[in-house]
Amino acid sequence: MSDLRSLLHPKSIAVIGASKTPGKIGNAVIENIKASGYTGEVYPINPKETEIAGYKAYPNIKDVGKPIDVAVFCVPAAASLAVAEDCGQAGVKHLIVITAGFKEIGPEGKKLEEDLVKIARKYGMRITGPNNLGVMDTHTPMNATFAKDFALKGNIAFISQSGALCVAILDWSFQRGLGFSQFISIGNKADLNEADFIEAVAEDPNTKVICLYLEDVVNGDRFIEACRKATPKVPVIVFKSGITAAGAKAASSHTGALAGSNTAYDAAFRHAGVIRAKTMTELFDLADAFTKQPVPRGKNVVVVTNSGGPGIVASDAVETLGLTMARFTEETLKELREKLPPTANIHNPVDVVGDAHADRYKIALDTTLKDPNVDAAVVLLSPTAVLDIEEAARITIEAAKAHPDKAVVAAFMGGAKVDAGVKLLQANGIPTYTFPEPAVATLRGMVEYGKLRSEVAASTEWTFDDVDKAGVKAIFDKVRADGRDLLLGPEAAQVAELYKIPAAPSKLATDADAAVAAAEAIGYPVVMKIASPDIMHKTDVGGVKVNLNTKEEVVEAFGAIMESCKKAEPNARIYGVEVQKMMPKGDELIIGMTKDPTFGPMIAFGSGGILVNLLQDASFRLAKGLSKSEVEQMITETKAYTLLKGFRGAPPDDIPALVEAIGRVAQLCRDFDEIAELDVNPVFAYPKGLSALDVKIKLK
Amino acid sequence: MSDLRSLLHPKSIAVIGASKTPGKIGNAVIENIKASGYTGEVYPINPKETEIAGYKAYPNIKDVGKPIDVAVFCVPAAASLAVAEDCGQAGVKHLIVITAGFKEIGPEGKKLEEDLVKIARKYGMRITGPNNLGVMDTHTPMNATFAKDFALKGNIAFISQSGALCVAILDWSFQRGLGFSQFISIGNKADLNEADFIEAVAEDPNTKVICLYLEDVVNGDRFIEACRKATPKVPVIVFKSGITAAGAKAASSHTGALAGSNTAYDAAFRHAGVIRAKTMTELFDLADAFTKQPVPRGKNVVVVTNSGGPGIVASDAVETLGLTMARFTEETLKELREKLPPTANIHNPVDVVGDAHADRYKIALDTTLKDPNVDAAVVLLSPTAVLDIEEAARITIEAAKAHPDKAVVAAFMGGAKVDAGVKLLQANGIPTYTFPEPAVATLRGMVEYGKLRSEVAASTEWTFDDVDKAGVKAIFDKVRADGRDLLLGPEAAQVAELYKIPAAPSKLATDADAAVAAAEAIGYPVVMKIASPDIMHKTDVGGVKVNLNTKEEVVEAFGAIMESCKKAEPNARIYGVEVQKMMPKGDELIIGMTKDPTFGPMIAFGSGGILVNLLQDASFRLAKGLSKSEVEQMITETKAYTLLKGFRGAPPDDIPALVEAIGRVAQLCRDFDEIAELDVNPVFAYPKGLSALDVKIKLK
Repeated sequence: MSDLRSLLHPKSIAVIGASKTPGKIGNAVIENIKASGYTGEVYPINPKETEIAGYKAYPNIKDVGKPIDVAVFCVPAAASLAVAEDCGQAGVKHLIVITAGFKEIGPEGKKLEEDLVKIARKYGMRITGPNNLGVMDTHTPMNATFAKDFALKGNIAFISQSGALCVAILDWSFQRGLGFSQFISIGNKADLNEADFIEAVAEDPNTKVICLYLEDVVNGDRFIEACRKATPKVPVIVFKSGITAAGAKAASSHTGALAGSNTAYDAAFRHAGVIRAKTMTELFDLADAFTKQPVPRGKNVVVVTNSGGPGIVASDAVETLGLTMARFTEETLKELREKLPPTANIHNPVDVVGDAHADRYKIALDTTLKDPNVDAAVVLLSPTAVLDIEEAARITIEAAKAHPDKAVVAAFMGGAKVDAGVKLLQANGIPTYTFPEPAVATLRGMVEYGKLRSEVAASTEWTFDDVDKAGVKAIFDKVRADGRDLLLGPEAAQVAELYKIPAAPSKLATDADAAVAAAEAIGYPVVMKIASPDIMHKTDVGGVKVNLNTKEEVVEAFGAIMESCKKAEPNARIYGVEVQKMMPKGDELIIGMTKDPTFGPMIAFGSGGILVNLLQDASFRLAKGLSKSEVEQMITETKAYTLLKGFRGAPPDDIPALVEAIGRVAQLCRDFDEIAELDVNPVFAYPKGLSALDVKIKLK
Repeated sequence: MSDLRSLLHPKSIAVIGASKTPGKIGNAVIENIKASGYTGEVYPINPKETEIAGYKAYPNIKDVGKPIDVAVFCVPAAASLAVAEDCGQAGVKHLIVITAGFKEIGPEGKKLEEDLVKIARKYGMRITGPNNLGVMDTHTPMNATFAKDFALKGNIAFISQSGALCVAILDWSFQRGLGFSQFISIGNKADLNEADFIEAVAEDPNTKVICLYLEDVVNGDRFIEACRKATPKVPVIVFKSGITAAGAKAASSHTGALAGSNTAYDAAFRHAGVIRAKTMTELFDLADAFTKQPVPRGKNVVVVTNSGGPGIVASDAVETLGLTMARFTEETLKELREKLPPTANIHNPVDVVGDAHADRYKIALDTTLKDPNVDAAVVLLSPTAVLDIEEAARITIEAAKAHPDKAVVAAFMGGAKVDAGVKLLQANGIPTYTFPEPAVATLRGMVEYGKLRSEVAASTEWTFDDVDKAGVKAIFDKVRADGRDLLLGPEAAQVAELYKIPAAPSKLATDADAAVAAAEAIGYPVVMKIASPDIMHKTDVGGVKVNLNTKEEVVEAFGAIMESCKKAEPNARIYGVEVQKMMPKGDELIIGMTKDPTFGPMIAFGSGGILVNLLQDASFRLAKGLSKSEVEQMITETKAYTLLKGFRGAPPDDIPALVEAIGRVAQLCRDFDEIAELDVNPVFAYPKGLSALDVKIKLK
């Protein structure tokens, strides 16, 4: 873990290229540091000035002669290497390289960026950027950016890969009243990346939620590690762009980010306990809510309203987003029945109806929020002639305070008429929206965090110590020594066996006698397939014979397969014939692995056979860190699960065996980075046990 | 069609229960009419007053003695029947019954509402409401509501089933700057319903878009007819609530609306050319945009931005929402290359980069909007030190004006800094959003309307005149005469044949000889199944024998089936054994029909056999009005389509035959309202032709 305390709370800051000329970045930065109320030492570096912004200026950073925590670069890219050398010699700890003209401009800039990193490494300095807006910490306080304003003091840490977005969000945050602990523009991420900053701000007592705008992740493992460490303490919400082909293309022309597959990001975020915001609005709606309201213990929501329509809209949203309309206890219903007029609807959504004064909101909220079946509340209000809206707001605020374990959000609908009430709610920690749906969407995000947090806390990598790693290594070495990267069927089956993945017994036979011996050792009936790394579509060239029951059939099949294949593919390397036990038909499944450039091996499970492409019924998880409960979860996410549970009176399949097989495949892929591709298709699942029929392994 | 001109543009209005007392509804209504600048005659009706709000008051409406277009009821429910009688005698055309206390309070109120309708019918009066807010028309101008304000003049017709929502939306609309042509609260819809109002406002030259909040639809056919008539002229956007079980439950406790199934609503909206808004926000975002921007001809979008991050976000949204990032012509690229600096990205998204002055927006917009491959533009802006934001807004406005056939929307990100630019854009007809995603979502809705509009214009009901309706009627009559509602297999197959739906040949045999004769007439192999309306699970009781190839096998099967079934189900009515041609296996499909209470027969098509429940792979369309192209479309929407097209080298199935079979099933269901349920499962599709294996028909 990188210690970024001296970056976020520095005792001294040098501004290299500080300037007296308004409009220059070097002027904006030093004026911002001053205006932010920063109380540490400030050293403007500019050979032409003796004083800037009231601080004594130095011609070179080496002339300062005192410890310097942070140096902010406001010099042209061409000067950056020399300046970095100077910083190194002056013992600077952190460089914030605002300067642009690095990786984002092409190969030349990329080289410059690499050289800059080399210098930093040499002196043990860390780089933020280059090509960024700078760094703010409102509690230090410090505004080491060239933004026009300083963020409002608050508890959201915002980390952004886009500087322009930082500027826009910052500006917008004042209207919205969002307060930040840190506001960090990470630029090209030449050295410090999102993972470093997540770790750092998660440790900060002023941060209650971490929000990120990301176009890519630099190091998948580090990112997951940082997020899993943060999640039990504070929620991490990511808005990841570049999810579509068009977006990824735009991203790569932007900061040269190589976007990993969206599926891998989904799998990684889930394993890391990260909430993925689908829109920018959702990102900040959620961030705001997390700083104000507790994480609900469950997903049971009460909706309180004074008009039917919005109550229905909210109820729809609750169910559509996977939350539940709370069912009240008998006591709650009794109390509501006694205290509310007969025209009111005491079942959820609780409708206090149009002639309600604010007191009915008090009855509805006080009664339902103390119900153990209620985890959160959505308070809806439409203006009426008789309702004191500010009073309704105060009642909502008090009810939320009286139940600090339950999340309360509101949608006071209408404009000017509800304005005073809305302001009261917002000033008192009740997230408030114009319409019911975003209020419910916020609760959904909070509930999701609660779930992810406990999942992350409970999950540990599921490992098996009864596997024969050395045996597999030997097979891989042999394959390579043979000049191949594709394993033959019997080799792959053997690898599976060494990891106790139940593959159908299989042997390689180089002549007819050996084939008979193999068949008799395995037991009839058998299937025979040509063993060649060069023949992909075995059936098409007469390379497969099934349901062979006697010695004679095996002998005949051996001859026929060899002859037919040699004729069809005269240049193919043929190793003989694979003799495999013919297994009874079961439910067809697939277990597979693909390599993601960012997050490594990703395990897929789903419906197999010919249907796999048709249905595209698969769920994915990262192999690294995969826990047993994650495997169980991934099975339930597929349509195949309906079959596995026992469809239409069929007996259920052996799900525990399947869970274990997936866990073992994951371990195999973790243990051997050299596996480039792995596919077990089909796997037959039976009421007892399962059989991996066709294991394909390709090495890097 | 109902002529509602005298309701929306009345020459005279009576307010029954008009009052001088502020706070009373009867006071609010008359003051609103006056304040709205209504220029027709106004007659307050109140026996205790001689003048109200400056208008001469009358003790009873019958005393007015002049023609009265509209009477607004502000009297208690108990008085409403007598008042309606008076109105009828006075020759009133329209009653706006604001009064509550009708259907929404239970059986007693329902009776009162029915009696009110009877009186109205007797005199040829139409009722708006009861239990509503009233009606506004800003162009008349007339505010016959008890709302506190009058809507801004504009071109959105808003029709709402929730009065409270009307109040909230109206209040909010001032902040948002939304202008309305009509603002109509339809209440309990005792007489006039959504369809009547859609027809009326669609005819109004001041209405450019129709927006509805609905909890249910009263009459499916009328609704579809009204929408299909409106759609070619103006978009109809519906936010339908009560879509989930919880929402529907809330809806029924609200206005007693019986919600049809959400799938049927989807099918109906699509057929009617209605855009379904998924959130309240989307409803008004779209409504606003339709009044300001042209409907794009296609879905090719250009994104122009001065910062990378938001450009990626917008590109992602474009693809995620099913739009396309426009590919520019060579000319466009050449011009952009020449005029923009080399740092700019000239491919879509066009990034004029952070140091851009407003002139680069002009270059980007002028060049791309004239490209024939571009249908719409999203203009993104993040504030920078060098950019004149108001100038960028003016450039956007001018570019949009210069290309009146292309839709332009904007997201100027940031708060106070972009505020003046945002105001300029909004005042000049450019829909503007805080973040990129809702800007793109609006374009998506507009593109969808363009598509729906042309689909509605092109689609006519697909009918067949070579069907034997009388023959089917005779079979149904026979089944009924037999005291059954379920058709036996051979009867259902015969119905299919009479509609030229290719069913597998099937005959009923009452003894073994007849079975043999049937088998020989049909041709071997055959399948035999017990023919009984009381045996549901035929296989379980030994009621099915397959693959029978000889006379002997048929005789033996007949005996075995009869014996086994009589033993297992001694009380079942047994009609004999069905002898059916055993058809070769094809791709398994299902064609089915369910009855929706609101929209009538709904046709389903999807994957069949055991997979139908597992995959839930089905698409739905209403039988009424079903066009050939809609049938073709519904096939392409399923996963089964992948199989039908020819999966993994298999030859494609006979899709035209399938299209026709679905069209004929739809006609059968339209022709016979008495069909309660119909299921053809499985249908085997072949490279040439298809075969309906099992036709199930149940009558009402």
